[in-house]
Amino acid sequence: MPSVLELAARRRTVREFSGEGVSLGDVLKALDAARHAPSGANSQPWRFLIVTDPEVKARIRRAAEEGERRFYSRVSGGLREWLLSMGFGPEKPFLEEAPVLVLVFSKSGAPYSIQSTWLAVGYILLALEEAGLGTVTYTPSDPAAVAAAAGAPDDLILQVVLPVGRPAGEGRQRPRLGLDEVCRLNDWETPCAARGSGWPVGRG
Amino acid sequence: MPSVLELAARRRTVREFSGEGVSLGDVLKALDAARHAPSGANSQPWRFLIVTDPEVKARIRRAAEEGERRFYSRVSGGLREWLLSMGFGPEKPFLEEAPVLVLVFSKSGAPYSIQSTWLAVGYILLALEEAGLGTVTYTPSDPAAVAAAAGAPDDLILQVVLPVGRPAGEGRQRPRLGLDEVCRLNDWETPCAARGSGWPVGRG
Repeated sequence: MPSVLELAARRRTVREFSGEGVSLGDVLKALDAARHAPSGANSQPWRFLIVTDPEVKARIRRAAEEGERRFYSRVSGGLREWLLSMGFGPEKPFLEEAPVLVLVFSKSGAPYSIQSTWLAVGYILLALEEAGLGTVTYTPSDPAAVAAAAGAPDDLILQVVLPVGRPAGEGRQRPRLGLDEVCRLNDWETPCAARGSGWPVGRG
Repeated sequence: MPSVLELAARRRTVREFSGEGVSLGDVLKALDAARHAPSGANSQPWRFLIVTDPEVKARIRRAAEEGERRFYSRVSGGLREWLLSMGFGPEKPFLEEAPVLVLVFSKSGAPYSIQSTWLAVGYILLALEEAGLGTVTYTPSDPAAVAAAAGAPDDLILQVVLPVGRPAGEGRQRPRLGLDEVCRLNDWETPCAARGSGWPVGRG
């Protein structure tokens, strides 16, 4: 098995999927990892809907794209420039093209429910990568409309849709800041990696 | 290397640490994994402060416990009952006893900065577990006061403090809901694991 660091470093966002099928067991294994995550007061606020039914996927896509069209009609300035430069638009074909969608919800009112649920999403991404499956953390512009299209109960808030499948093509991870650009040691001037990685730290 | 599912399933929350030292390299490896996480518009909103200096740890503990005392003086009802039943109180000795603290911040204003940062926290927890290191996701009652005690810049919001060290004692993961209690397939009546884990799903 690759290490967590290896999985994190090799993983890339996937929006285009090959025609290959996906083992539901691999998806379930990723959610099985997620349900073990820690959460505020152990409330386990995450709920998952796996969607494989083409009709449900089509309904989700329709609701998502309607929300995106409303969003794109009012977005402006730097964000609009960035979206256009990335080639993003209101069309979300991956919501039908991916063999599996995983909708991740959080229970409203649970302590730290958003934080806990997204921590669990981190578990899912690494587990999918381990299984050779690609995904993108798609956060709909109108999550409530997508949740309604999926028939979700009222107390669940849609956090993210994960379309899952075998990646089409190779792709590359977009560049990341270096460790010394995001990490400091003891004060805000000392780069954290400056002292070398073998340095042992005794009990405080 | 254990699988992601194995790491997730064996990991437990650790609040008491052995006297053993910790390799800073293992902590850096976990943050190295985190910096590869995906984020809204690839903004990489996470920032990390590693604290090994006993004086800085003492300052952080003092600020944290002052915030906890204010919180505990006003908490009531079910939450108070739960906190007492768990043996929780305003004292946070692990903030000095752990050989290393990792303070995780998010940049205010970045898109989906809380979500992205907590996704990266999921990466950190699994990487620490892989290295045999324990931690607890401690979310201070007054994060701004703890951030100030750590000398953090104004545009960074403290999300969580991770005290890191070798676990003292064995411990057990608190019970989790089963997969079929948190996961559905296509509609909200069908348990997701009911069809067996080997089921392959074709392209939609």
